[in-house]
Amino acid sequence: MGKVRVGIIGAGRIGRIHADNLLRMGEAEVVAISDLFAGEELLAWAGERGIGLVTTDSAELIGRTDIDAVFICSSTDTHVPLIVQAAEAGKHIFCEKPVSMDVNRTREALEAVSKAGVKLQIGFNRRFDHNFKRLRELVEQGRAGVPHLIKITSRDPNPPSAAYIQVSGGIFMDMAIHDFDMARFMAGSEVETVFAQGAVLVDPVFAEYGDLDTAITTLTFASGAMAVIDNSRRAAYGYDQRVEVFGSKGALSADNDYPNTVVVSDEAGVSRDKPLHFFLERYNEAYIDETRQFIDSVLHGKPLPVEGFDGLQAELIARAAKESVKLGRPVKLAELNALA
Amino acid sequence: MGKVRVGIIGAGRIGRIHADNLLRMGEAEVVAISDLFAGEELLAWAGERGIGLVTTDSAELIGRTDIDAVFICSSTDTHVPLIVQAAEAGKHIFCEKPVSMDVNRTREALEAVSKAGVKLQIGFNRRFDHNFKRLRELVEQGRAGVPHLIKITSRDPNPPSAAYIQVSGGIFMDMAIHDFDMARFMAGSEVETVFAQGAVLVDPVFAEYGDLDTAITTLTFASGAMAVIDNSRRAAYGYDQRVEVFGSKGALSADNDYPNTVVVSDEAGVSRDKPLHFFLERYNEAYIDETRQFIDSVLHGKPLPVEGFDGLQAELIARAAKESVKLGRPVKLAELNALA
Amino acid sequence: MGKVRVGIIGAGRIGRIHADNLLRMGEAEVVAISDLFAGEELLAWAGERGIGLVTTDSAELIGRTDIDAVFICSSTDTHVPLIVQAAEAGKHIFCEKPVSMDVNRTREALEAVSKAGVKLQIGFNRRFDHNFKRLRELVEQGRAGVPHLIKITSRDPNPPSAAYIQVSGGIFMDMAIHDFDMARFMAGSEVETVFAQGAVLVDPVFAEYGDLDTAITTLTFASGAMAVIDNSRRAAYGYDQRVEVFGSKGALSADNDYPNTVVVSDEAGVSRDKPLHFFLERYNEAYIDETRQFIDSVLHGKPLPVEGFDGLQAELIARAAKESVKLGRPVKLAELNALA
Amino acid sequence: MGKVRVGIIGAGRIGRIHADNLLRMGEAEVVAISDLFAGEELLAWAGERGIGLVTTDSAELIGRTDIDAVFICSSTDTHVPLIVQAAEAGKHIFCEKPVSMDVNRTREALEAVSKAGVKLQIGFNRRFDHNFKRLRELVEQGRAGVPHLIKITSRDPNPPSAAYIQVSGGIFMDMAIHDFDMARFMAGSEVETVFAQGAVLVDPVFAEYGDLDTAITTLTFASGAMAVIDNSRRAAYGYDQRVEVFGSKGALSADNDYPNTVVVSDEAGVSRDKPLHFFLERYNEAYIDETRQFIDSVLHGKPLPVEGFDGLQAELIARAAKESVKLGRPVKLAELNALA
Repeated sequence: MGKVRVGIIGAGRIGRIHADNLLRMGEAEVVAISDLFAGEELLAWAGERGIGLVTTDSAELIGRTDIDAVFICSSTDTHVPLIVQAAEAGKHIFCEKPVSMDVNRTREALEAVSKAGVKLQIGFNRRFDHNFKRLRELVEQGRAGVPHLIKITSRDPNPPSAAYIQVSGGIFMDMAIHDFDMARFMAGSEVETVFAQGAVLVDPVFAEYGDLDTAITTLTFASGAMAVIDNSRRAAYGYDQRVEVFGSKGALSADNDYPNTVVVSDEAGVSRDKPLHFFLERYNEAYIDETRQFIDSVLHGKPLPVEGFDGLQAELIARAAKESVKLGRPVKLAELNALA
Repeated sequence: MGKVRVGIIGAGRIGRIHADNLLRMGEAEVVAISDLFAGEELLAWAGERGIGLVTTDSAELIGRTDIDAVFICSSTDTHVPLIVQAAEAGKHIFCEKPVSMDVNRTREALEAVSKAGVKLQIGFNRRFDHNFKRLRELVEQGRAGVPHLIKITSRDPNPPSAAYIQVSGGIFMDMAIHDFDMARFMAGSEVETVFAQGAVLVDPVFAEYGDLDTAITTLTFASGAMAVIDNSRRAAYGYDQRVEVFGSKGALSADNDYPNTVVVSDEAGVSRDKPLHFFLERYNEAYIDETRQFIDSVLHGKPLPVEGFDGLQAELIARAAKESVKLGRPVKLAELNALA
Repeated sequence: MGKVRVGIIGAGRIGRIHADNLLRMGEAEVVAISDLFAGEELLAWAGERGIGLVTTDSAELIGRTDIDAVFICSSTDTHVPLIVQAAEAGKHIFCEKPVSMDVNRTREALEAVSKAGVKLQIGFNRRFDHNFKRLRELVEQGRAGVPHLIKITSRDPNPPSAAYIQVSGGIFMDMAIHDFDMARFMAGSEVETVFAQGAVLVDPVFAEYGDLDTAITTLTFASGAMAVIDNSRRAAYGYDQRVEVFGSKGALSADNDYPNTVVVSDEAGVSRDKPLHFFLERYNEAYIDETRQFIDSVLHGKPLPVEGFDGLQAELIARAAKESVKLGRPVKLAELNALA
Repeated sequence: MGKVRVGIIGAGRIGRIHADNLLRMGEAEVVAISDLFAGEELLAWAGERGIGLVTTDSAELIGRTDIDAVFICSSTDTHVPLIVQAAEAGKHIFCEKPVSMDVNRTREALEAVSKAGVKLQIGFNRRFDHNFKRLRELVEQGRAGVPHLIKITSRDPNPPSAAYIQVSGGIFMDMAIHDFDMARFMAGSEVETVFAQGAVLVDPVFAEYGDLDTAITTLTFASGAMAVIDNSRRAAYGYDQRVEVFGSKGALSADNDYPNTVVVSDEAGVSRDKPLHFFLERYNEAYIDETRQFIDSVLHGKPLPVEGFDGLQAELIARAAKESVKLGRPVKLAELNALA
């Protein structure tokens, strides 16, 4: 295989970002794009990029013999059936998080992938962020010693729309799931218990849909380490994404990125511009890097950087967090089946 | 009253620090110092400072008519009886934290103080730290808006001795109690529930005494805000004391203090010296400031900056944290009596 | 004109960077590339990118009617004749700095450009750096008030090769010329006098070629402001490019960029990785931006962000700096002709 | 000698600061204070501190046999005669900078000191600043390698009064003299040439008295290193005192001190309070430290940290800077005599 021939399923913002990133790589080709609402605009967009096939039918795309891998960027409820179909068709799969909102269905998808022997990478893009990647390298080099405490701050600049909130799966499955993956990534150990507390402090609309906008989740790991994650749907100063790993030899911390380094000192004080506004700005390079590593893995047989199992674990933690809020007590991952 | 005439009870490190700080103030006079083990060394120390009375008997000191206020710096188990005696003798009282390890006994002390109409300030010195004081001012000015999340990092450079651990009251009552007070100070609201998790990751000696060396505690406040505190008995890089208040209008954060601002850039990277080593370095000015405000309050009738009630609340939270670890679930402050 | 059709003259590192940046822009097309030493390797390189013409003859490229603009990226001695030819052929021109090492020849080139009515942009890429661009915006908004002092630090991570030093034109014309342009950019005023001091402290090879490796240059502006630039050919910690503008209302300063924000706190101290290594890393985005603005200017008639006049002024200052070192006294730009 | 018995000459702000600092040291005693305008207020001030003698006559103070050392804190024009008298009386001397505004008179004072065999320390307090002291330690440890470039930023928050400007000796002798000493302190080498440029940009009152308010001075050292100092009489954001030493192995830089570490992140950006306002705040500890070292030197025979020779060298540089502005060319220290 000289190039990986890719089909994109779902032509929303993230689907197009992946397409554009793939188009810049010598080792990938974008052959087709499907979207339920494909129309003139998408045809034009695809035409400018030399993408030959535009269709409303994802099955057509999956059925193509000139496609080696699919990027599943459609709505969450379509992920499991698409993964199953793609796996059965022998396609390698890149799927956005979460695989599904039901861990049993996610397990089904993973089984289909395993049976078909194809690759499945989950879109936990933050592992590829230059700061968090470097932090993880240093953890692996033992610069923090044995990890004791992992602290993750994860706050969005603005809440999503009411329409989105309604179908989002809630703050844990939609937003904190990235942080749950980050905690596992840094800890190098599996989560045992989850305790989550939440509140509606940003906007009452979250309460209307039984959701939360502010949360603190604590995790304990098999290794004995603990993690704490704080989430907010609205940080007035923009996207706030920081990680700290504290261990027996010291602490490693990754701060936000800023658009520039300019500092103003005047009578009012010392100031600088706000951090990069949101995920498209902050994780721009990370999206490219995750795609490159997926292509690399498909083409050269390198191990995947984030697998289906990682998707499942993060979902389990999100599920446990939701349960923990409901029950008002810590929940063990091991007891989740009984609860379900 | 031209000057406040002070007697110091307990001539350990902290008693002597308070004495020296008082000696520098125009409005205070140190008249006497008592210590169970007072001997030649203490006589010499007091002599150099012109402190007239050195005794092994705290009752003698409390009985003096030329003393207006006492600083109780002896071991925790002596605090309640000394507060009661001093209150009954009409002395104003500055007492180190915690008042006691039993909230009911603390209540007794507070009642005696209330009955006698004297002042009681608790030694929560961190409220007077230049960073945290400034942070609190900004919270009061509304710079963070309505507080949503309070994050406190509190790590010591090195664990105390085994002998100390044994009588310390445990990580929550001995160490985190400062952070519980800080959380209340920043939240401007009272704690409702406490959930604490802990581990022995630093030194097995903590387990021997049924104690922990690493902990994460989450608090919920009546206002709806939440707080999270992480504690460790050993940070390889020194004393780590940071606070962040996140709210509807933004985030306020206070970093550590450093001994200097020098940055070295060389082939190995960019580096600077570690933060100030421990509480004596970090809170040097804070100790002076808390003492000054106590003297000010006694002399000029200004309100106390930290009262007996604040001591009681922090103890209640510490007690709840310990209970929470034991029970493996969140504990409400309201249910503490039932548990006791 | 739907797209600007570009020919690249000189297929060295910088020529290829410009080509690749142009290839990513919807509004530009790279039609041809010429290089004295064009061979198999360049043919393959151009083939991958769909660049139709590869030639050893720049005149052939300039003569093409399907080319609207040329990028002159060949050696400095070829700049003036190529500018003159391209201008006479009616091509718009982007030329790397310096135009030449002889201000009279540079003036010739500018006259040819002026006569032909084509556009000439000089490759002062640092004006497009996200930090310096933001700093300049703030200067324009008056955030520093009236500029009084401009301070520029400009140090390379490693000296160039002896071969390069020999033909470089010296530290002022080769390296500091960027800083002279930056000083003018920030001051918004023209330079009147130049005083430069230098030394050979990094490597004696500089002395062999009558060059310096360390220099401090001070400039005075017509506005009354002053600037100081310090240059070194070797900073052990990497590329050091900082600018500060101090004025009646305060100071604005732009720091270096770093590869990540990770901070390590351990027993040795607090450290982070070195700044971005060299100009390709630091000014990656700036190269794209300068090219985009050139294309924009050609296509939509917008004003050029850096003109031939800016190239000439920076060369005059570099010339004066060299003269100043020789004479051991400040040199006025106005007296340069007399000296020449 | 158990304690150094000190007399203070000049009861202005700095004289009183030294007195209070001495009063806190176990090894010093303040016996007397003299001031031309000594009156009720000074008597009261001295009374509170137990200073026995208050006089308008400095000769009376110098004549006392119960005085071991004098602190000369009176106006600059009195320094030389007082040093000579004190030296002849066998007193050790701490003298504020500058010794005088005429290097020949300063030499006279130094000769008297040398002849009498007493100690003379000059009040270059900035050498004792925690940041600059640490920077110097690192230079001595070779962390920067061989120093190539020294950069000093030195800006005051506000200009002095017109009355002060008139008698100040000008920006170089009054203000930059501290920076000239700092440059020598960091370089560990002697200055050979001085080139200074200045302007009146802050307030026309400076021009009225033939003075400048903004200046850039470059120095070359015998070692081959160079230094650049920028001065301004008015920085809108407060006192700006930074030093950078760049050498063969890297760069060491000392930033300003801030009143706290609190950072505010909100919709407007990320900000913090201004640096410490002026020298009393910034150099508070440095004043204590310089006094302590003087007392230590007198009592225990340790070498002085700043000697008369250091005072003379800084004055020579200031003189050369003034000359350089007048002549519009670099001035060698060696040619100063010819100019005088």
